[in-house]
This record gives sequence, structure tokens and C-alpha cells, in this order.
Amino acid sequence: MTSASETVKIGIIGSQFEADIHAASIAMGRHGEVVAVASPTPGNAQELADRYGIARAYTDYREMLADPAIDMVTITAPNRLHCQITLDAAAAGKHVVCEKPLAMTLEEADLMIAACEQAGVHLFYAEELFFTPKYVKAKEMADQGAFGDVYLVKQSEMHFGPHADWFWDVEQSGGGVFMDMGCHGIAFCYWFLGRRRPTAITAQMGTYVHTDKGRGEDHSFAIIEFEGGVIGHLEDSWARRGGMDDRVEVYGSEGVTYANLHMGNALPTYSENGYGYAVEKAPSTSGWSYPVYEELWNYGFPQEMEHFAKCVKGLATPDSTGRDGRVVQELLLAGYQSAGSGRKVELPFRPEGVVKPIDLMFSPLAL
Amino acid sequence: MTSASETVKIGIIGSQFEADIHAASIAMGRHGEVVAVASPTPGNAQELADRYGIARAYTDYREMLADPAIDMVTITAPNRLHCQITLDAAAAGKHVVCEKPLAMTLEEADLMIAACEQAGVHLFYAEELFFTPKYVKAKEMADQGAFGDVYLVKQSEMHFGPHADWFWDVEQSGGGVFMDMGCHGIAFCYWFLGRRRPTAITAQMGTYVHTDKGRGEDHSFAIIEFEGGVIGHLEDSWARRGGMDDRVEVYGSEGVTYANLHMGNALPTYSENGYGYAVEKAPSTSGWSYPVYEELWNYGFPQEMEHFAKCVKGLATPDSTGRDGRVVQELLLAGYQSAGSGRKVELPFRPEGVVKPIDLMFSPLAL
Amino acid sequence: MTSASETVKIGIIGSQFEADIHAASIAMGRHGEVVAVASPTPGNAQELADRYGIARAYTDYREMLADPAIDMVTITAPNRLHCQITLDAAAAGKHVVCEKPLAMTLEEADLMIAACEQAGVHLFYAEELFFTPKYVKAKEMADQGAFGDVYLVKQSEMHFGPHADWFWDVEQSGGGVFMDMGCHGIAFCYWFLGRRRPTAITAQMGTYVHTDKGRGEDHSFAIIEFEGGVIGHLEDSWARRGGMDDRVEVYGSEGVTYANLHMGNALPTYSENGYGYAVEKAPSTSGWSYPVYEELWNYGFPQEMEHFAKCVKGLATPDSTGRDGRVVQELLLAGYQSAGSGRKVELPFRPEGVVKPIDLMFSPLAL
Amino acid sequence: MTSASETVKIGIIGSQFEADIHAASIAMGRHGEVVAVASPTPGNAQELADRYGIARAYTDYREMLADPAIDMVTITAPNRLHCQITLDAAAAGKHVVCEKPLAMTLEEADLMIAACEQAGVHLFYAEELFFTPKYVKAKEMADQGAFGDVYLVKQSEMHFGPHADWFWDVEQSGGGVFMDMGCHGIAFCYWFLGRRRPTAITAQMGTYVHTDKGRGEDHSFAIIEFEGGVIGHLEDSWARRGGMDDRVEVYGSEGVTYANLHMGNALPTYSENGYGYAVEKAPSTSGWSYPVYEELWNYGFPQEMEHFAKCVKGLATPDSTGRDGRVVQELLLAGYQSAGSGRKVELPFRPEGVVKPIDLMFSPLAL
Repeated sequence: MTSASETVKIGIIGSQFEADIHAASIAMGRHGEVVAVASPTPGNAQELADRYGIARAYTDYREMLADPAIDMVTITAPNRLHCQITLDAAAAGKHVVCEKPLAMTLEEADLMIAACEQAGVHLFYAEELFFTPKYVKAKEMADQGAFGDVYLVKQSEMHFGPHADWFWDVEQSGGGVFMDMGCHGIAFCYWFLGRRRPTAITAQMGTYVHTDKGRGEDHSFAIIEFEGGVIGHLEDSWARRGGMDDRVEVYGSEGVTYANLHMGNALPTYSENGYGYAVEKAPSTSGWSYPVYEELWNYGFPQEMEHFAKCVKGLATPDSTGRDGRVVQELLLAGYQSAGSGRKVELPFRPEGVVKPIDLMFSPLAL
Repeated sequence: MTSASETVKIGIIGSQFEADIHAASIAMGRHGEVVAVASPTPGNAQELADRYGIARAYTDYREMLADPAIDMVTITAPNRLHCQITLDAAAAGKHVVCEKPLAMTLEEADLMIAACEQAGVHLFYAEELFFTPKYVKAKEMADQGAFGDVYLVKQSEMHFGPHADWFWDVEQSGGGVFMDMGCHGIAFCYWFLGRRRPTAITAQMGTYVHTDKGRGEDHSFAIIEFEGGVIGHLEDSWARRGGMDDRVEVYGSEGVTYANLHMGNALPTYSENGYGYAVEKAPSTSGWSYPVYEELWNYGFPQEMEHFAKCVKGLATPDSTGRDGRVVQELLLAGYQSAGSGRKVELPFRPEGVVKPIDLMFSPLAL
Repeated sequence: MTSASETVKIGIIGSQFEADIHAASIAMGRHGEVVAVASPTPGNAQELADRYGIARAYTDYREMLADPAIDMVTITAPNRLHCQITLDAAAAGKHVVCEKPLAMTLEEADLMIAACEQAGVHLFYAEELFFTPKYVKAKEMADQGAFGDVYLVKQSEMHFGPHADWFWDVEQSGGGVFMDMGCHGIAFCYWFLGRRRPTAITAQMGTYVHTDKGRGEDHSFAIIEFEGGVIGHLEDSWARRGGMDDRVEVYGSEGVTYANLHMGNALPTYSENGYGYAVEKAPSTSGWSYPVYEELWNYGFPQEMEHFAKCVKGLATPDSTGRDGRVVQELLLAGYQSAGSGRKVELPFRPEGVVKPIDLMFSPLAL
Repeated sequence: MTSASETVKIGIIGSQFEADIHAASIAMGRHGEVVAVASPTPGNAQELADRYGIARAYTDYREMLADPAIDMVTITAPNRLHCQITLDAAAAGKHVVCEKPLAMTLEEADLMIAACEQAGVHLFYAEELFFTPKYVKAKEMADQGAFGDVYLVKQSEMHFGPHADWFWDVEQSGGGVFMDMGCHGIAFCYWFLGRRRPTAITAQMGTYVHTDKGRGEDHSFAIIEFEGGVIGHLEDSWARRGGMDDRVEVYGSEGVTYANLHMGNALPTYSENGYGYAVEKAPSTSGWSYPVYEELWNYGFPQEMEHFAKCVKGLATPDSTGRDGRVVQELLLAGYQSAGSGRKVELPFRPEGVVKPIDLMFSPLAL
């Protein structure tokens, strides 16, 4: 184990948008240090390495896994590769931070969890909403009894579509926006409610705007029922113009709160000619815009990465693990089944022979 | 028909919260005039009459219907009485403004529509959201192409529970919050989308907070699918603390808009000791509060009542009729069926032998 | 006097932006009716007449004054003409609604008040902020004791510059933004505080952005002291990009309130391609914008015009008169004197030989 | 100099509200470490030490200064003691972080600056607004040209009065709210505008609510003119109910921005019974409230303290120094002079024989 005074040496697998977030976020902390990046497209890894002063760049992540100096890897590759890379990393004795969603199937999730357990390495699940300061405040207030008995947690995330091509190819991504962002809401409601056991899910999805870009859904709703009769409501969109939007609401017998991460945190700004950067996915900085400040920190990415590094150093107990990711995986599958069948799906839901979650919407099982 | 220069003489049936809104709203216009009020509880009609300078008070609405001077009646009585009163009013040759929801069943709705048609009187459906200025602006922008192809309309209304006891008794009301306020959202989405034909509904409801007050649900979600693949999303609550909240969001291929009728319109105010009136259902005016201004006008009630009076005078074409109410009725029934069965319900949905909508949630039909 | 059932016949003097507001606002009421419009530029009066169905158009307002059918005229001509037109109207026995600011000098103001008094006609001062519903709500709460002892009222109005050329020519307008919009704030604070006697004013102004367009100031601050030690704070700008902005804040020993007429009332909207109309002075409707709804009504213009008509009919007591305008006039003069001299100016302030208010800033009197 | 790997050892002088902020903020960083606290009231230092795990507590700060292990001290004592303590600290070879405002007079400020220069120690001025993330974002946008030529910066801070008694005693504090919080706005505008030279100030102040608590003003306005004709506008209040409020606005030829640190960042919350903590100076957590999250970080305190520690370690160049504090000192004096004389005061302003700034308001100099 890395001693308290040393940094955890981290290798990033991937080089695009999410990898950039990881690199920047780890650099903001003190317990971790990115020492390598691996990406198959020639030049991509080096480009990220140059930007962040990362020591080594690879085109083959397996070479990176062979470096004994590396303690932990983060996986930002397409969803369909999460499982294989995790197994390889565990076999190499590396701790794993796997980006959401965990995998394509429950079988994969179980393999990943087992492999890391057997290898004695952590399998962290990169759900930054457990660390988003504004949402953490909401949970603190809830836990202090501010809302009495919480009966409903709502989370939504919307923008006009992801950066990378693979998101739009369901063969690589496993699904559309529900797969990409619904996993945030599922995890968030589960965590917020104290990891209460989910019992059922009802989902409705469609491809409304980006019909030309693929088969994945671009706006989704899901209602999750938890033990004790409390519910979570998710709304996710790749079809919302104007920039990123992320919100949480909490309802209880004694109160309510609204946490808006963008329009409710921004500096409403008018600029005739524009400026450097407003917010993720903002189409423009001219005219009116909603620039945010300290975007990574306000989203919780540095805090999340610091947490993982501290866990590796034995300074913290893991708060977002592969098991959380598996709970999400099951609800993703059940959600697609619900959307495809037009029925609520009870848990446990362990479909067999599923290649990717969205297949359950295209061809729901006869239950 | 009342000539253009005369006022339409109106009798209000009911004397409580909604009747007060009617009286105040009609007084703000120029085409209508309240000349009578009827309420069975002794003294109630007179009390409202005194407050608004209404000429005549009755305990039996049938006596009021016998007055030839009255052109139109408004019905604010409990839902289970809407049908009978409408039939009586039509038989008496009076135009009818029926508060939402229209009735308890489709059979009742059809009877009411037929009776008014045969009697040659208008059957208006009191859906004020068709007249809410802020929401009308959203529709104008949509119709001007501001959002491109609109694919989703969201409407929500929340507070901590209604005034009158009969709301909490499902035998009188027909259901809980979905019946009481979901009808607003159903009508609104339908109207906003140009009265596009609804094809299905998926609903989820529960009694989360007011378990001691009755069997009705106190927080509901519903997703309505319309022809052409566009959707409406409703959220309604009797379990939201802090005062009234009413919002609309519109999503399209080219844009989005947010219309918040309360927190987005109010004068955020701190008062150590409080003041006269903040907003409907506000628990207090001390501490922080969200007082609104010109509440009735901002909700569209005066505009709605003026519209009905103008229609009677032949100065306008009806924009909110019993047929709209019947569309809502069918979706209310289908919504309860969906919530009770855990399945999407396709339209048309014509259940037989239903006494009140919520029965379909307690005992969903086997479809 | 016009009987209660008839409408007050109104002639509008002017044909541009403000005249349009008058015509639209009067049409929204029931007590007044625009029957004539006069504007010296050939064609302008007829254009407004055509748009609003106004019976008669004139190029010479004196001809309009000769029409016995006209009860009242509204003056939207350049500031330097307010006095002469008022005298002519009074001489013709017409009631007068004079747009703000009342005049160029106190001498003119006194002449106008005297002439109307002698002629037995009303001299109304068109300060719509006394009727702005959201601000009226703030005053109601204050009068109910919501804020305890009010010690500070703040009002501000900002946009990127007026429509008509004459505003930018101080010879015609009398000053820049403080003359054009500071008069609103002066009147508002005076009225809000119960027409408490103002005792002094401290002002600071400058031309920061539109240095190429004229000599008038384009951003101003003023602090008015009132009897009893309470204060008003005004901020006005012709140099604020992004559309109209109008706000009020009220501070008292027991509370505070915020009333924002635009960003705090609007439907925040993103539109890729734009739509019909957002808000006064909005540069664009594409990208993000803050469209308002029922703009005239929310500003109080129809309510203001209805009030004036009702006063003519003896149905109301005037609430915004030439005497209010004179109070404003004195503070405008004192404010320019303060800005030019860098000193607080005590009231009464009766400068002699002043041609237009801004002269006191260019050449402050030695006091 | 402390090596890069060691922490800067810090002693806090004072034990109340501001000292608590310092202790908490330094603990959030990695370059500094609080090792001692000194406060004359028996028990106070120990209480803070216990809460933060600080090694040593003193009642006499001079004893603390004698400890060779200490690199730097922070001064949170009453304003009238800032000078003496700074001189003592410099004499002891300690770097100094002095809370705002720097001193009571320019003479003191000059003494403090000279003493630290001669001793070869830093004199840092604790103006956290240079580090407030949301305001730093506004400055970044301005520097990127978002607003074109910035002509006006506004900053305001308001609550219902400070914690400690000494604030209300002008003999100890030197003045009321303008001294206590106007110094923030003065520094902020100066820094935001690139440390442009201030040329004049016009101020207006009064005691409106807390007339029973002392002679200090409780609401103040000030307009600062800078070289090149740009201005800063400050508003500060100890008479605003409802919790802390801090805002910035920036106006330029090409744009505008609004940065609201509280109501514009909070989670609007309703709680029937309340919860742990909402925001500084919040009167209650029941009813509606505006809880903020990560309050210290969002105010910039940890970033500020980290910056000072990094400077001591040679890792950063000081960005908030005694010289900044002296600029503020001069404007505080000139502001009180302006408020007392009712005149704009030109800089430089070097009044002689002033004991404390507010004296210039009570007895303005004849200039």
C-alpha cells in the first residue's frame, strides 16, 4: 500500500473528454498523481500527456498495466470495454476506477467485482454525484431531518448530446442517454436514500430529436421504487439545447429542497462577442449564457478522485464501489425492459443472454 | 343571447375556495356578472354573497336554476356532483362552466356533453391553464417556432394539500392529487400540443405523507404519449411543503423554455413578523416567503371567465369545452389503471362499471 | 364630464415608441378610447392610426385640440415640447396626460400645473411605476408592516439606449439617462415612502459607453434623502447590454424584499433560431433570452391609463399628477447640480435661468 | 524559508468568528498548519485550540510571537489593535496576515508596511474576495474581453449585524459597516479593475436600524472614481434581515454579468422544523431558507490562506498585500469624509490627526 506521504500513481485509460476530467481532477488533489495514459489511437495519449505533464503515454493499455509503479488505473474507454480492461487491471494487481456505467451486463459486472476481490484490489465506481458539493449539502440536510421523512428524490441531467462518436453507436455504448446519464440518477437516488433496496422500476424513453444519429434514446424518464415505499425520479436528455443542466430535488413530509447545479449556480452573463468558456456543452458564449465557476470542483470530480486515492492509501473507506455500479447495472437493464415492455419491472431482474442493455428495449423479454 | 352591451348573468354553485375564485375573477371582467350563489350548507352562500355583493343566495341550486335571469352557472361543487348539476342546468337552459375534473366517469362526461348539446347551451370546462399568461407566452413562442419541433411538454403543480374535506374523501372526489391536479397537466399538454391525439399513458402514484387523511394518492407522475411520438410529463403533489408551486417546461429540437409561476415570479421576501398574504397555500408570511402579485390574473382565472362570458355573447369561440374535459377524463381513468396495473395503458380506454377513477388503481382491470 | 357609461375620448400627441404604448394600453381598458393621433412628421400619425384603428390622424396637434369630441390628450413628444403642448391643451379645455419627465425646468412645471388648474382640467403625470403590479405588491407588503420601518427603497432601470434620436440630443431631451429614467426612480421612491418630503440628493453620473452619440450621461446613480432620515437609491443606465432590466428592493428594520421585473419574471428560454418577441430592447431572440409575458400589463401601462380615464369620469381620485412631476423635476435639477458640483444638494432647490437640467451638470451653480 | 515539503507554521491571534474561519480554512489546505492561537480572554484560545486540534494556546500573543517555530501569524483582533500586533510580529520576524480593514489610520498603515519591509517579512492583507471563486470567474471573463471595456464594478455585502461587541463600539472598530464591509468592496473594485488608481470617492451613510447599538453607520453607499473614468459602486449593510448576502455586478461596453454568492448559489429550502446550518447570519433554518454549500470554499477563505502559505514558501507571488490594504485605508478615510461633508473627496487624501476613520464623518475636515 502507498504510504500516507506518497501519492498514489495512477494511469488513465482513454484520452478524450472524460480522461481529461480525470487528469485535471487528480491534479487538483494531493493524494494521487497521474503518471501514465493509454489510448489506442496513435497520438491521442501523448496529446493528453503533453497537456497535463504526464510522464508516459501508451497506445496499448496492457503495456501500462505492466508497469509496477502504477497503483491504480481509471477507465474512460467505451462502455463495452469496461469489463475486459477491469479484468486485465485486476490481474495486473492494479486498483480500478471504472467510469459509469459499470458494464454492459450483470454478468460483466459480477465478473469485474469478483476479479477485483480475488486480486485484492479496489473496484471503485466513478459516480461523482456522491461528491457533488451542492448535492452533498442536500443529503446532509436530509440526514439532519430537514425534510422529515424523505419520500421522493429527483435527479436530472440534460444537454444536447455527448462528445464522442461511440456514445451514439449502441453497439459500443450499450444504450442511449438512459445508459449514459440515467446511471447517474439511479446511483444518486440509491445513495441519497441510504442505499435503500430498490424494488421496481418504470421507464419511458424515446428518440425524439437525434433520429439521424443512431438508435439510442435521447430523452428518458424512470421512476424507481425503493423498499419502504419511497421513490426516485430520473430525467435524462441528449435533446436539451443551451448547455449542460443538472438538478436535484428532495421531497419529504416536513420539507423540500431544490439544488440546481447550473442555472442555479451560474453568473447569468451577456456578452456581445463572447469569452473563453461558459459551461460544458454550451453552444456559445455570446449573447446570454450561464457560465459556471470551478466546474470540476462543483461537480465533485476532484473530491471523488481524491477519495479513491485516499482509499488506496488506507485513509478512507470506499464510498462508491463496483457493488454500487452493479445495483445501477441491474436497474439500467430493468429500465430498458420496462421501456420496451410498457410495464413496471420488479427486482431482482437477472435477464440472461443480454448483450447490451438497450436490446431489452428493442426486444423486451416476455416476463 | 345576451347582447354585446349587457353582462352575462352568472350563478355560482358552491361557496368555498373555488367559488371565491370564480366570484373574484368574474368581477374583474366586464362581460360577466355574478347575480346568484347556491350552496347547501346554511349560511355559506350568503357569506359569499355578502363578500362579493351578489344579489341572491340559495341553499338549493335548483331554485337558482329556476331564475330566468340567469344565463350561465359555474359548478364548484364536489366532483361527484358535477354530472347531475350539469344535467339540471342544461335542462334549465343554462350555459355551464364546470370546474375540473369534469366528472367521475366517461359515462358521466358523455351525458353532460350530450345534455348541453341537446339543450343548445355551452358546456365550458374550467381549465385556467389555457389562459395563464406566462404559459400562453410559452405556447406563443412554441407556435412561432422558437423550439423547433416540440417533443416534450412538462407541467407540474404542487402544494401540501387542498382546503376542503371532500377532496380527501375519494368517494366524493374520485381520487387523490392526480384527479385533483393531474387533470390540469393532462389538459395543458393536450392543448399545448395543438390538441394532438393522446395514444397512451403510464402513471405512477402513491400516498407518501398524508396516509392518515384518506386513501387518495398524494404524489403522482404520468407520462402521456401523443400521436407523432411527442410526450407530456405531469407531476402533481399534495405533499410539497412551503406553498403553491406550478411550472411548465417545453423541449424541442431547437430550444427549451422554463416557465415558473411562483418561485420564478415572486418577490422573494424576508419579514420578521409577517404581512397580509403571500401566495395560495403558503404556511406563513414570516421568515422568507415567495409572495406573488395579482395571483388570480397571473393564474388566468379572470381571463378564463371573461372568455366564457364572451362566448355566451357570441364574441368568441369556445377554447375550453366539455370535450376537452372528456379527453382529460379518459386519461385520468387510464392513468389510474396504469398506476394500479404497473403497465402503460393504450387509448382509447373505455372501462365499464367504473364508479370513480381511483377504483381503477385499487382494482385495475385485467386488460 | 364623461358619463360613467361612455368612454373618455383621447388624442395621442406623438407617434413613436411611447405613443404606441399609450395606444395599446388604452385599448386594453374600458374607460378610455383613442380617437385621434397627431405627429408632425407626415405619415407617422396615420401609420399609428392604421395600426390601432384610430379614427383621425393629424400632423398638427393644435388641429386635434380643436376637436370638441376629445376629452383628454396624452403627450409623448420630446421633453422640450411638454410645456407648450400642455398649455395649449389646457387652453383648449383638454385634460392632459404628460409623459415623464414633466418638463425641462421648474418654471415650465409651474406653468403647466397652473394652466391646468385654471382651466379646470387634470394634469396627469404618466409614471407607470405607481401601477406596476409587482411593485404595487411590494408597497402593499410595506404598508402592511412586512418590513417594519422602511429605511431604504432602491429602484433601477437599465437598457442599452433609447429608440428615438431626440433622446440623445440633450437640447431636445434635457439630459441623458438620469433625465430619461432617473425620473422613474425619483417618483417611485417618493411615492413608495408615502410622498415623504425629499430633503437632499447626491448624484454621480458619466458617459461611459455612448461617448459617440451625444453629451448626455449614460449611467447614473442618485441617493435621495427624505424627511425622517429614510433614503432612496436610484441607478439608471443606457449602457447595459442584453435587454431591459427593471428592479426594486425595499429594506426595513424587520424585513427586505426583491422585485425584479425582467429576469425575475421571465421564461428563461433557449432558441436556436429565435422567435417573435422577447422583451423591450432585447438584442436578439436566438440563443438564451429572457422573454416576458404581457409586457404592457406587467409594467402597469394599461392600469395607469385606465386610472386616468376613470379620474376624468369621476370614478377615481388622481394618483399621479403634475405635482408629483414637479417634485421629480426639482430632484432632476438638483441631481444634475450634485453630479456637476460633486456635492449633496439640499432642497428646496430653485435654480434660475436654467434652460435644461443637464446644464447644471455641465455648469453647476456656485451654491 | 519553509521548504516546499513542510507546512508553514501559523499562529492565530484572536479566537472568535474570524479566527474560526482562519483555523478551518487553513486546515483545508496543505501548505499551512495552525500550531498556536492567542486570545486575551482566559479560556477562549484553548476553546478554539480544542476544536481544531491546535497544539498551543496563549492568553498573551507576545508569548506566541516568541516561539521560533512559528512562521506566520494571522490577526483577527479588533481593528484598533492591528497596527501594534503587526509591529510586534514583524519585530519577532513573523510574516503577518492582517484581517481587514488594515488599520485605523494611514499612519498606522504606513508603519505596518514599513515595519514588515524592514523585517523582511510579508504583510498580507486578508481580502478573501480576491479568491472568491465565483468572483474570480467574473474577473476572468472580464479579462477575456467578455464585457468589452468595463466601466462599472458593483459589489455589495449585507447582513443584520456582526457577531462581536467590539464592532458596535466605534472606538474599537473605527467605524460602522463601511469600515467593516465597505473595505471589501473598495478592495474588490480596485483589484477587479487591475489595481487602477482611484481618484475620488463619494459616500453616503446612515444609522437607520441599530440606533440603539452604537454610533456606527449601518447602511452605506460609496461610488469610487478611478483613473480613466471607470467607477466602482459599493453598498454595505448591517441592517438587512434574512441572512448573509454578497453580490457583484460588472458592466462593460459589450456585456454585463451578475454574480450572486448567496441567493444565486443556494439550495432554496423549506423545512418545517429546521436543520443544522444554512448560511452565515441566517436567523433560522425553519420555514424557507437559503442554505449554501461549502461556505468557506465558496467565499475563498481556504484559497486565500493557501495562497499566503504558498507565498511564504516561495511558491507564489503575493496577490493581496498591505499595500492593497493601504489603498483601502485611504478610501475608507476619504469615504467617511465624503459622507460627513456631503462632498466628493479627491485623492490623494492624507488627513492628519485622525484617530479613527468614522471621526471624519462626525467632524469632517474643512477642505
